Amino acid sequence: MASTSATVPSNNAPYSDLPPVISQLLEAKARKGLTFEQIAQKINKDEVWVAALFYGQAKGSPEELAALATVLGFPEDQLTASLGAHWWPNRGLGPIPPTDPVIYRLFEGVLVYGHALKAVIHEKFGDGIMSMIDCKVHVDKKPDPKGDRVLLTFDGKFLPYAKW
Amino acid sequence: MASTSATVPSNNAPYSDLPPVISQLLEAKARKGLTFEQIAQKINKDEVWVAALFYGQAKGSPEELAALATVLGFPEDQLTASLGAHWWPNRGLGPIPPTDPVIYRLFEGVLVYGHALKAVIHEKFGDGIMSMIDCKVHVDKKPDPKGDRVLLTFDGKFLPYAKW
Amino acid sequence: MASTSATVPSNNAPYSDLPPVISQLLEAKARKGLTFEQIAQKINKDEVWVAALFYGQAKGSPEELAALATVLGFPEDQLTASLGAHWWPNRGLGPIPPTDPVIYRLFEGVLVYGHALKAVIHEKFGDGIMSMIDCKVHVDKKPDPKGDRVLLTFDGKFLPYAKW
Amino acid sequence: MASTSATVPSNNAPYSDLPPVISQLLEAKARKGLTFEQIAQKINKDEVWVAALFYGQAKGSPEELAALATVLGFPEDQLTASLGAHWWPNRGLGPIPPTDPVIYRLFEGVLVYGHALKAVIHEKFGDGIMSMIDCKVHVDKKPDPKGDRVLLTFDGKFLPYAKW
Amino acid sequence: MASTSATVPSNNAPYSDLPPVISQLLEAKARKGLTFEQIAQKINKDEVWVAALFYGQAKGSPEELAALATVLGFPEDQLTASLGAHWWPNRGLGPIPPTDPVIYRLFEGVLVYGHALKAVIHEKFGDGIMSMIDCKVHVDKKPDPKGDRVLLTFDGKFLPYAKW
Amino acid sequence: MASTSATVPSNNAPYSDLPPVISQLLEAKARKGLTFEQIAQKINKDEVWVAALFYGQAKGSPEELAALATVLGFPEDQLTASLGAHWWPNRGLGPIPPTDPVIYRLFEGVLVYGHALKAVIHEKFGDGIMSMIDCKVHVDKKPDPKGDRVLLTFDGKFLPYAKW
Amino acid sequence: MASTSATVPSNNAPYSDLPPVISQLLEAKARKGLTFEQIAQKINKDEVWVAALFYGQAKGSPEELAALATVLGFPEDQLTASLGAHWWPNRGLGPIPPTDPVIYRLFEGVLVYGHALKAVIHEKFGDGIMSMIDCKVHVDKKPDPKGDRVLLTFDGKFLPYAKW
Amino acid sequence: MASTSATVPSNNAPYSDLPPVISQLLEAKARKGLTFEQIAQKINKDEVWVAALFYGQAKGSPEELAALATVLGFPEDQLTASLGAHWWPNRGLGPIPPTDPVIYRLFEGVLVYGHALKAVIHEKFGDGIMSMIDCKVHVDKKPDPKGDRVLLTFDGKFLPYAKW
Amino acid sequence: MASTSATVPSNNAPYSDLPPVISQLLEAKARKGLTFEQIAQKINKDEVWVAALFYGQAKGSPEELAALATVLGFPEDQLTASLGAHWWPNRGLGPIPPTDPVIYRLFEGVLVYGHALKAVIHEKFGDGIMSMIDCKVHVDKKPDPKGDRVLLTFDGKFLPYAKW
Amino acid sequence: MASTSATVPSNNAPYSDLPPVISQLLEAKARKGLTFEQIAQKINKDEVWVAALFYGQAKGSPEELAALATVLGFPEDQLTASLGAHWWPNRGLGPIPPTDPVIYRLFEGVLVYGHALKAVIHEKFGDGIMSMIDCKVHVDKKPDPKGDRVLLTFDGKFLPYAKW
Repeated sequence: MASTSATVPSNNAPYSDLPPVISQLLEAKARKGLTFEQIAQKINKDEVWVAALFYGQAKGSPEELAALATVLGFPEDQLTASLGAHWWPNRGLGPIPPTDPVIYRLFEGVLVYGHALKAVIHEKFGDGIMSMIDCKVHVDKKPDPKGDRVLLTFDGKFLPYAKW
Repeated sequence: MASTSATVPSNNAPYSDLPPVISQLLEAKARKGLTFEQIAQKINKDEVWVAALFYGQAKGSPEELAALATVLGFPEDQLTASLGAHWWPNRGLGPIPPTDPVIYRLFEGVLVYGHALKAVIHEKFGDGIMSMIDCKVHVDKKPDPKGDRVLLTFDGKFLPYAKW
Repeated sequence: MASTSATVPSNNAPYSDLPPVISQLLEAKARKGLTFEQIAQKINKDEVWVAALFYGQAKGSPEELAALATVLGFPEDQLTASLGAHWWPNRGLGPIPPTDPVIYRLFEGVLVYGHALKAVIHEKFGDGIMSMIDCKVHVDKKPDPKGDRVLLTFDGKFLPYAKW
Repeated sequence: MASTSATVPSNNAPYSDLPPVISQLLEAKARKGLTFEQIAQKINKDEVWVAALFYGQAKGSPEELAALATVLGFPEDQLTASLGAHWWPNRGLGPIPPTDPVIYRLFEGVLVYGHALKAVIHEKFGDGIMSMIDCKVHVDKKPDPKGDRVLLTFDGKFLPYAKW
Repeated sequence: MASTSATVPSNNAPYSDLPPVISQLLEAKARKGLTFEQIAQKINKDEVWVAALFYGQAKGSPEELAALATVLGFPEDQLTASLGAHWWPNRGLGPIPPTDPVIYRLFEGVLVYGHALKAVIHEKFGDGIMSMIDCKVHVDKKPDPKGDRVLLTFDGKFLPYAKW
Repeated sequence: MASTSATVPSNNAPYSDLPPVISQLLEAKARKGLTFEQIAQKINKDEVWVAALFYGQAKGSPEELAALATVLGFPEDQLTASLGAHWWPNRGLGPIPPTDPVIYRLFEGVLVYGHALKAVIHEKFGDGIMSMIDCKVHVDKKPDPKGDRVLLTFDGKFLPYAKW
Repeated sequence: MASTSATVPSNNAPYSDLPPVISQLLEAKARKGLTFEQIAQKINKDEVWVAALFYGQAKGSPEELAALATVLGFPEDQLTASLGAHWWPNRGLGPIPPTDPVIYRLFEGVLVYGHALKAVIHEKFGDGIMSMIDCKVHVDKKPDPKGDRVLLTFDGKFLPYAKW
Repeated sequence: MASTSATVPSNNAPYSDLPPVISQLLEAKARKGLTFEQIAQKINKDEVWVAALFYGQAKGSPEELAALATVLGFPEDQLTASLGAHWWPNRGLGPIPPTDPVIYRLFEGVLVYGHALKAVIHEKFGDGIMSMIDCKVHVDKKPDPKGDRVLLTFDGKFLPYAKW
Repeated sequence: MASTSATVPSNNAPYSDLPPVISQLLEAKARKGLTFEQIAQKINKDEVWVAALFYGQAKGSPEELAALATVLGFPEDQLTASLGAHWWPNRGLGPIPPTDPVIYRLFEGVLVYGHALKAVIHEKFGDGIMSMIDCKVHVDKKPDPKGDRVLLTFDGKFLPYAKW
Repeated sequence: MASTSATVPSNNAPYSDLPPVISQLLEAKARKGLTFEQIAQKINKDEVWVAALFYGQAKGSPEELAALATVLGFPEDQLTASLGAHWWPNRGLGPIPPTDPVIYRLFEGVLVYGHALKAVIHEKFGDGIMSMIDCKVHVDKKPDPKGDRVLLTFDGKFLPYAKW
């Protein structure tokens, strides 16, 4: 559902902590009426990764930026000037702890299940961690008569601790 | 691999923030040489939920506590005296932000992908949240020649915001 | 009591953390001399929900935004351009802990009565929480010769903890 | 449902921040199998106030302590020695922000609806606050086929700001 | 001592957290060469309350704003447009803990004498608090040959805790 | 009203941050049934200063400790062994910000009126501060038909800033 | 060594927390190629006090501001308009704890030697403090073949605690 | 002035963060009635360094510990067992920011004069810092008819920044 | 790989905490397509030091600034006007703890290995520290078939603690 | 240099956050007079890794624990009972930010050089991080006539960000 006049002011949270081009990208997306899923399909990526790119949390290759520019009808050189080869994501966004309930629930998951997850990961894999760098994150909709469910998946490489 | 003399001192982090019976449960588990997965199978639950119970983050029913006592050879009345009907989990454990790298990586996931997940959840489901209460958490091992992967899944009900 | 020249500067707390249209909405309301209660009656909603919308903490449907625009004599397209389909509330506003005494008193209620409320909720409902998502909040004036009283009500669905 | 051996260790959160008699009171309550509601009826008070007393957040009069001692079969002199005339509640309990989801939801209510409530209170009552001192707090169960609801009410006196 | 060109930049602490009209009021005061005491006498209020108004911490009635405008030669409609009926103080100003030594000393008074004051207030008045809402604050100069003294007085209503 | 068995456990807030003799002093006071005011009269000091001494925030001279020991029937050598010449107060007590409403209200006074007080003090005295070291603090009860009032006074020397 | 085009942008730390005239003063100083020591000699003050004035941490008298304006060739009325009679320093600057290594080292001195200094001050002077208000601060260069040394001196009045 | 029964409980701040031998050393010192200055003279060190040793913030050589043991009549092997070759100071003591007014004033000095000191140090010495490691700290009493003064000196080596 | 239109907005983190010339330098570098390594070779410095200079964390001499200006084709007087003799780095950049995973990993190294490094440094060198002022930092790429490795080296002078 | 009576109290920082066996290991090490380097050579590991093990920040294999027990003459079963198969390091130790100057200097390195290191790592390796899990840390002594130098090396695998 395109909204030709949609605006995303760049001086409110969380956009005030991101390059101004981010607000322009989100405006372009809204005006085209595209979802992250639709953009993702067109540029052959997952929608969560695309959304991470839109929030300045991932780095696009020249080809990915070009494809994105095409999909959004956004000037490619403007995109490259801002998020091109010289730009590296300054990752981490928003207050700690998060105040928005959607994000807070994820944080609550860390508070409540963090030690249990650590214990199970150690038991299944040994001394090491689940990488958040070599990690793919997915969101799926799981229809359910009692109310649809969000299926959130982190698929991260296990990294054993070095000894030396 | 049972270690008949395993000790879990109750005055170190994170045990110092939990009832003393927690350390005794973990000692019993270590002395029996049981994994969370093995215990889970015996009491018909998922290993992550069982681990959450062991870290004081879930509440067992009388039947679940009884089954657990049996599996561990732990005195049931002692378990019930501590974690029985009168006890309610005081959820949330460990420092904020977490310092242990296993748990920190989950927290980093919230920092880096939080806004992207919020955006995708809103787009797929509307204005609301993924419940962390009606939520099931799983850890699976996904063998991979380049290094095994941790598959961490949150399966939570979507809750739309009320209007009134 | 309309004040035709009322201004709400968008760069002071808490407005500096909200989209600029918020200040314009509040100015329009002040210039029309309407209360939240009056607006709420006209658009068939509760005044607390309406106030939450005015502070960027709730999401209006297209119909609700249209009705609001009509009531305030505010250009609908401008409202939609800012708070329309592409916009999702970034919930949570103001410092932690709150410094304003009105809001601090609510926070003090959590500090002083939080554990008592948790205990009573568990006892009456079991292991779970009162939802703040499926929750309706009301403020009523209760006349009292010794000084009027504020009747603040949270009407939230009980959500039992999942087991798996 | 009385559990004659229920224990409440006094060195875990939140009990480690409260006088040791608190744990003993909670143990006595659990062993008698009494709910806060039952105790409240017997001593003619509201269950939330009684729970606040049990968590060291309210001060009982000599008569109230005596009645409580009778109900619990707890030595009155021991209760008076700890929580008698010389004792004053040191109010405020638990971490800020709260980590337990039950208590956090209340805190989230302050974050999300705090400014809306402030705005409505000012509009309905003028410049002042809702007292959290002259305030009565209730929890009711509201049966609902779609899931029971928690009705949480704060009934506090409005206090206008002095001018001088 | 009027300084016709005095400036109060609105983008420095603490003014950056206050409406821009605050800086203009302080400039007007400086240019008129009036003290808070002189203004207070002219508008029949205490100088501390007047200063609180100047720092956005109190709400003036239409009559008080009009009187203030007259005293300062400040356009009344501009004052009303900013701080009129639609405006409510967002109370609480400056960092926590305060860094300015004048304000820090007051904070130090809370740190050092807070528990003593609590104990004496309880002993003299019972279980309750000194209101900071129904409270009048005064500053007097007490000449002393060994160095003048500041006499700071808080005159607040005692509020007993409700029981229910 | 003496309570011969009053106890003040030394391992709860705020006593856990104070020497154990503090709890014993408070127990002795409660068992004698003496108020701070009564003790103050007997040892010729103000009750607030006496309470500060009881909370480890003031240093007694040998004579003052001796007088206090006499009044309380407390072994003088035990008092001197703990709080004698070798002991210096470690001033500052309790969490920041305070959570107890009695103490929080004082803190709120700093947040709300701090800048106003700074402005008035500068205007009346020049560039400098009100000393919290050479400062006397009083609490008086001011009967009032609408509810008694607490009169809290800080009488502190003004200290001008050095220039060099 | 004058740099006629030196700029000091007023929107970077720490200048963004200070009145804009501060940046202009520092620019004027840089363009004149004057050191704080040279300015101090010309206006008959110590260089540390002068630097404190330049960082908005001290208040100049009309004569001092006039002298400073002359030395810098800065318009006196502009200086007075900003830092004149109506302006009072808002003291305290920079993050806590400090991140700049020069300032952090001083902070480290407080962390490491604070308790030792408190103990020695009490032993030499009794119960009281070293004033930071009636205090003169000096920096001297002490040549040393193994590397020059900074001699930093605080010369502050001892203030004994009042009793009352 | 020796107090043969002086006690220094090891479980109060700041002693609870230090090895138990620290409390014993302070008790021995009090019972001998020795000042830091007297001990310092006997072991040929400065009193501030000696006090730092007593607060666990400096490391004594075997000879220094032996001399200290002799002066205090303290068992040398006990001192060596605790603070001997295997022990290294865990430097930094007390809350941040400090709450004790003596220590806070030093901290205030950093807040108020930190940027001025940085500016003067850079101007006099270039780009680098005053070492807090190769630094000697002294406290002297400077008699003054208007009130004695504390002369606090930091004598630290200037360290220029490396370039590479 | 030069990008002639690369932009580095000066109002995003971390640039918003740095002088505006920093963004211009980074733009010039990107437009020239130069790496830090290439610039370093041309001006005879290490690339880490050069990058530190680009992030406002090191001070260039007039010769170094001139050489940098030449390499970048950047106006030398503009560089000197901003970062010349009158400018001193305000060191320390970014949030604490860091949220960007690259920087967080270094911080994690301090959390996990800090005490081990302290213990080994003390054992190898005695009581003192590794200087971060007289310290050279290098990053090298160490090819490895299992994945290239980052070799990060801190080469800092050991500074023994003074005694006095 | 063995000290047969060396003690390491387990209730001081940082030991109070670690299992009690840690203090016993450190005591055994001190009593044997062994350095980390000597232990490392005997068990064929690097001294930094060994020190990390001693501070509860690394996990030893059964063989490594056995070797360690042998070297220290420590009962192997006691070591295994505490740090055996059932134990997983709870990594991260000490306050944030660190107060000990040795550890703080490392933290300062992150504050000052963090962004420069991030920039150089990205430029040399692309979008990714230096692993702190697959990372080896070394401390070497580099003799230097102007003062020995600490050579601290982190040798960590570069991990590129996944895309999906």
